[in-house]
Amino acid sequence: MSEDDKTKFLKCFEQLKEELVRDEIEDNQVQIAVDWIREMISYNVPHGKLNRGIAVMDGMRALGKDEVSEKDMWKAMVVGWGIEWLQAYFLVADDIMDESITRRGQPCWYRQPHVKMNAINDGILLEMQIYKLLKRHVGVKDPAYAHLLELFHEVTYQTASGQLIDLITAPIGVVDLSKYTEEAYMRIVTYKTAFYTFYLPAASAMRLSGIEDEQAYKVANDICVKLGQFFQIQDDYLDCYGDPKVIGKIGTDIKDNKCGWLVVQALKKCTAEQRKIIEENYGKDDAECEKKIKALYVELELEKLYLEYEEKSYKELTEIMEGQSVLPKELFSSMLAKIYKRTK
Amino acid sequence: MSEDDKTKFLKCFEQLKEELVRDEIEDNQVQIAVDWIREMISYNVPHGKLNRGIAVMDGMRALGKDEVSEKDMWKAMVVGWGIEWLQAYFLVADDIMDESITRRGQPCWYRQPHVKMNAINDGILLEMQIYKLLKRHVGVKDPAYAHLLELFHEVTYQTASGQLIDLITAPIGVVDLSKYTEEAYMRIVTYKTAFYTFYLPAASAMRLSGIEDEQAYKVANDICVKLGQFFQIQDDYLDCYGDPKVIGKIGTDIKDNKCGWLVVQALKKCTAEQRKIIEENYGKDDAECEKKIKALYVELELEKLYLEYEEKSYKELTEIMEGQSVLPKELFSSMLAKIYKRTK
Repeated sequence: MSEDDKTKFLKCFEQLKEELVRDEIEDNQVQIAVDWIREMISYNVPHGKLNRGIAVMDGMRALGKDEVSEKDMWKAMVVGWGIEWLQAYFLVADDIMDESITRRGQPCWYRQPHVKMNAINDGILLEMQIYKLLKRHVGVKDPAYAHLLELFHEVTYQTASGQLIDLITAPIGVVDLSKYTEEAYMRIVTYKTAFYTFYLPAASAMRLSGIEDEQAYKVANDICVKLGQFFQIQDDYLDCYGDPKVIGKIGTDIKDNKCGWLVVQALKKCTAEQRKIIEENYGKDDAECEKKIKALYVELELEKLYLEYEEKSYKELTEIMEGQSVLPKELFSSMLAKIYKRTK
Repeated sequence: MSEDDKTKFLKCFEQLKEELVRDEIEDNQVQIAVDWIREMISYNVPHGKLNRGIAVMDGMRALGKDEVSEKDMWKAMVVGWGIEWLQAYFLVADDIMDESITRRGQPCWYRQPHVKMNAINDGILLEMQIYKLLKRHVGVKDPAYAHLLELFHEVTYQTASGQLIDLITAPIGVVDLSKYTEEAYMRIVTYKTAFYTFYLPAASAMRLSGIEDEQAYKVANDICVKLGQFFQIQDDYLDCYGDPKVIGKIGTDIKDNKCGWLVVQALKKCTAEQRKIIEENYGKDDAECEKKIKALYVELELEKLYLEYEEKSYKELTEIMEGQSVLPKELFSSMLAKIYKRTK
């Protein structure tokens, strides 16, 4: 992303936040509620990588052959922030359910002593603020409006469905490796990550560009699902093999009993004896156990397997993008370029 | 409500639920996820009094002079269930935040051993199911559709704002009676209850009837806010003075440190000495303390005060309904008739 885009995008955030705060003041809300809203937005919304939000701007340019009006670019930024707000909502809620400790380098919102379970209600507020943004800056007169609302609803439902399957497949404190199949893994990844991370920005840009051909959305969906799977598998790889200094956190998937790509592959490749090692050491909060799992990953050559997957998957994705003529391939290739060979 | 309406309304629920479950099956969701969705809906959605949902049917008839088509009445039922789904969402979330034990005669959803904090995610699913219902049965071709979506978004935001003020005003385990003012009370009641209980059904019926005059929505809003205040004050009164056998629960507002109408009035009327009794006994999980508060309420003649309020408020409401000519007064009087002098 260009520095210019990021600067413009962050400036847009300040305006959107101040408008939401002003709504509270105009609604005669008590001062502590106004202050709460402002703090809650500032704490939870703007601290991510912003890739999802900015992808809407990139998508507009890909679809508009770089001739996008200022007004349409503004709408793209607002919808982009809608996606960032949606992610904030998911993260606030997921962190409670997953009993997480930190998020984006600060304590999870629900762990703030003055917040605790109020965070659940803050999630509802964050989510509904999306629709305040869309109402104010897109609005009922834009033919894309109702479609955008449906898109956000649909993707929110899909993401929560992914979280549901994840929660049922790997409940906190229960280890049942028989559930860690490739099929279950791909389903969780698709629903919990791919739709909101890739399809939502792409389809938002398509709606804002006035595309109504349902077939085009089907094509976009198929490609974005594959992009999302690629992205999440990278994420799981980086959790184990990434440089903590670069990715900004120490990976905990092994200790946390996560149904991640590496353990799924290990379970596919392992002998009965090796499986016993996994059973005895996976999901334990113990450095020795983690070491044994990592040693097994080396034995099973999972890093090599990942690099092969990455190459193969990149090639496939490029072929699919070029094999369709419904949408400009730049809509997807800009997203792929950002994640291929990433180190964080 | 007529028995016939209730029967039709409940039949509609069965269809809506089965459609949602079928969506999961068609989406190839795993069986445990399909079963979870079905159980979660059945447990949380249909066990209330259904007043809010059925009020949309009554509203349609009031606006359509009893000549409402079958098709429009079906849409009214679906939107009515949307309101019941929305309430289910609030109750699931509020019960976690308020640390409640039972709800509608069964353990709160989050207290089910297989659910716990997954209930937060179920709330998101319940909420998004509203928009699946509206998409399927109202749909983008109906001019009311985008307005209905905005209405649900707006009222959800208002209700969460009410919950926020309530949570900040009376945090669990902290007693600060200086915050229990009439102004704070009325604000909480208006946001947390009035909008979704009265305005949402009325405005939904108005949208479905094709009313576009914004002034009419303003009038409806003013009346519904007053109805909601009346309703919640009754609720607070019944918590203390209602017959547990009739209302189906033993009131716990005093023990639970609730910012209710009775304690707000007591704080307004009391002497310095009586205030001390409140300070020492309100919000304590102790039968003796509760007795002392109830005795003070008798001393302060709060029951009489309530009955006077009820009369005055009923008169005022009737006057306002009859004093406007933008909307048929039956739209509101049917709601008022259902709650005036209610014992449960």
